[in-house]
Amino acid sequence: MQNFEYCNKTKIIFGKGTENKVGTETALYAKKVLLHHSGGSTVRSGLIDKVKDSLKAANVDWIELTGVQPNPRLSLVREGIELARKEKVEMILAVGGGSAIDSSKAIAAGVLYDGDVWDFFERKKTAEKALPVGTIVTIPAAGSESSISSVITNDEGPWKRGMNFQCIRPVFSIMNPELTYTLPPYQTACGITDMMAHIMERYFTKEKNVELTDELCEGTLRTIIRNARKIFNGGEMNYDARAEIMWAGALAHNGLLDTGRIGDWASHALDHELSALFEIAHGAGLAIIFPAWMKYNIKEDTARLARFAVKVWGVDGAFYDLEQAALEGIMRMENFFKSIGMPVRFTDANIDPARIPEMAKRVVHFGQIGNYRKLDEKDAEAIYKLAAQ
Amino acid sequence: MQNFEYCNKTKIIFGKGTENKVGTETALYAKKVLLHHSGGSTVRSGLIDKVKDSLKAANVDWIELTGVQPNPRLSLVREGIELARKEKVEMILAVGGGSAIDSSKAIAAGVLYDGDVWDFFERKKTAEKALPVGTIVTIPAAGSESSISSVITNDEGPWKRGMNFQCIRPVFSIMNPELTYTLPPYQTACGITDMMAHIMERYFTKEKNVELTDELCEGTLRTIIRNARKIFNGGEMNYDARAEIMWAGALAHNGLLDTGRIGDWASHALDHELSALFEIAHGAGLAIIFPAWMKYNIKEDTARLARFAVKVWGVDGAFYDLEQAALEGIMRMENFFKSIGMPVRFTDANIDPARIPEMAKRVVHFGQIGNYRKLDEKDAEAIYKLAAQ
Repeated sequence: MQNFEYCNKTKIIFGKGTENKVGTETALYAKKVLLHHSGGSTVRSGLIDKVKDSLKAANVDWIELTGVQPNPRLSLVREGIELARKEKVEMILAVGGGSAIDSSKAIAAGVLYDGDVWDFFERKKTAEKALPVGTIVTIPAAGSESSISSVITNDEGPWKRGMNFQCIRPVFSIMNPELTYTLPPYQTACGITDMMAHIMERYFTKEKNVELTDELCEGTLRTIIRNARKIFNGGEMNYDARAEIMWAGALAHNGLLDTGRIGDWASHALDHELSALFEIAHGAGLAIIFPAWMKYNIKEDTARLARFAVKVWGVDGAFYDLEQAALEGIMRMENFFKSIGMPVRFTDANIDPARIPEMAKRVVHFGQIGNYRKLDEKDAEAIYKLAAQ
Repeated sequence: MQNFEYCNKTKIIFGKGTENKVGTETALYAKKVLLHHSGGSTVRSGLIDKVKDSLKAANVDWIELTGVQPNPRLSLVREGIELARKEKVEMILAVGGGSAIDSSKAIAAGVLYDGDVWDFFERKKTAEKALPVGTIVTIPAAGSESSISSVITNDEGPWKRGMNFQCIRPVFSIMNPELTYTLPPYQTACGITDMMAHIMERYFTKEKNVELTDELCEGTLRTIIRNARKIFNGGEMNYDARAEIMWAGALAHNGLLDTGRIGDWASHALDHELSALFEIAHGAGLAIIFPAWMKYNIKEDTARLARFAVKVWGVDGAFYDLEQAALEGIMRMENFFKSIGMPVRFTDANIDPARIPEMAKRVVHFGQIGNYRKLDEKDAEAIYKLAAQ
């Protein structure tokens, strides 16, 4: 087990009706906030009205910035930074999924930085301070509600890049599973895939002696899989299933499952190029990349892939032929993704394989990717090709 | 799943050599600290010298209070409060196990309270503020390093009572598994039992829909059991086994495994009477109480006890006879406790069954105990009797 530091200060407020606590929680940090959301379903569902009522009751003033979309844009972040400065807000309040939260985090760090916020994503600068960010989560997926991550797309490239800094971790996150009842199935499925991917990125590590975190990863994955099946078998409004998924999504990315180990993260990088060039949802891209990444690495640490197959997917008989067990696990994972409506090949998502060389070149922009196995441009190309078949 | 709030602000600094970071971490909070420890093994091992060197290097001054013992005493807490006030310390630094940490927490809350610190334990007052507490953990057991709990024994009763307040949660905890190599086996075993008990108290809940926390509880218990076996089979200096146990001990009691559910805690109350009257170590008392408590509750929720047997103890065949599976699980747990040198009956620990009525009366001092099943004096007496057989 490797040395580690772990501290997660996000206050989680979880359960029915918790969105009505947003005013009192916000008032602990600010008299005026930037309320950042899509302006679509957040308004239609009546959620934003509830949020405003709660802020009003707590004497918190707000200015609104709407228009956040999936794969949130740098242009809107820059607009938010200007607005936040002009209006002298003291906090950013995100209402939505990972996109609204990531966009809010970037605004929060950008407001207190003299240069261009994109510097953080280009790894030119380290963010040391940010305005506090609070969130109301409506899409369980990114785990951004208690993570140090923000992923933004620069429209000019397009480049999709992430930053990870302690100062952008939300101070509170409000999570009411009822708010997720009305998510379109595709979005629910993308979210489920995203949180599974966050765990798998951590699970596939070179560190051998991390039993506790292995157990926690496997247990969280099994819980997600079981409850996803409930939701996709008529349980859209099954509170407990929605609650398990929502809480699992936060734990998947809050840092706990990292302790004592170094995760991989090549698949996220490989997907970022898909998302940037083809506007494919992050979760859908991951459902395509992960099986290919595993197949490409089948000989890298076959025992770990076999363990994954046995412990997470219930594969039996991994005694004499670890590789066979590993492959069976990958197949079960693919079938699961398909069963919730996810694509698992380029053809399922209209991705043009002709752009593979371009994506492989772009993905190594900062050098090799991955830790479980270091991947260069040729490896990336091979994995994209496996995903295209 | 029940609504919950979860926030754990303790910064965990885990791994080899981390005790040398104590100076820089402490300097973030204080110029002068009360250094609180046993004065025994902490000194003999050279640890306290290292701590003083680190404090000195960070320009942090200290005053020492030694003499902390298992089942830490109110009298020493009161002495610590006076000393801390007189010396105007700004922080309490605990070096040791749960006793040193619990004692430090009580001092930290007492310093800022005008009345008698015992009021908090007698449930007469709520602690709203405390000096910051930092810890260096030498005995993985109580999980006090990131919990909101403190348990103190009032020598006048003797009464052993606990308090739970957010303000006494440590601001940082330094955990180096190497420091646990030299623990006597009995203390290692008591610690293992204590952390397992913390998880079992949470596992046995009336809440049915808590799959994720069930999985996390089961995975953590399995990890503890596997690594305990390694340590007790010649692995005293197996770093990874010691590390798994140490990290599991913190997670067992940091609040994560509580989320969405209400734990039981009757067994802890039942043990507090054993510890108070017979000076038995907390872990040893729990090893005696838990099997008896489970047997007494075998019909309360047989399915949960059977699940515990199957998922944690690997019992097979729990399809037609849940009770048989549950009993098999309890037997395996007893055998495990015995294998690491723990007592499982009164006779193993020289506890006089004649005092059962007295203990049963004392344990309901504040009313019924437990949440999984509410227990009154008669129930407590029956459980003590099962433990005596």
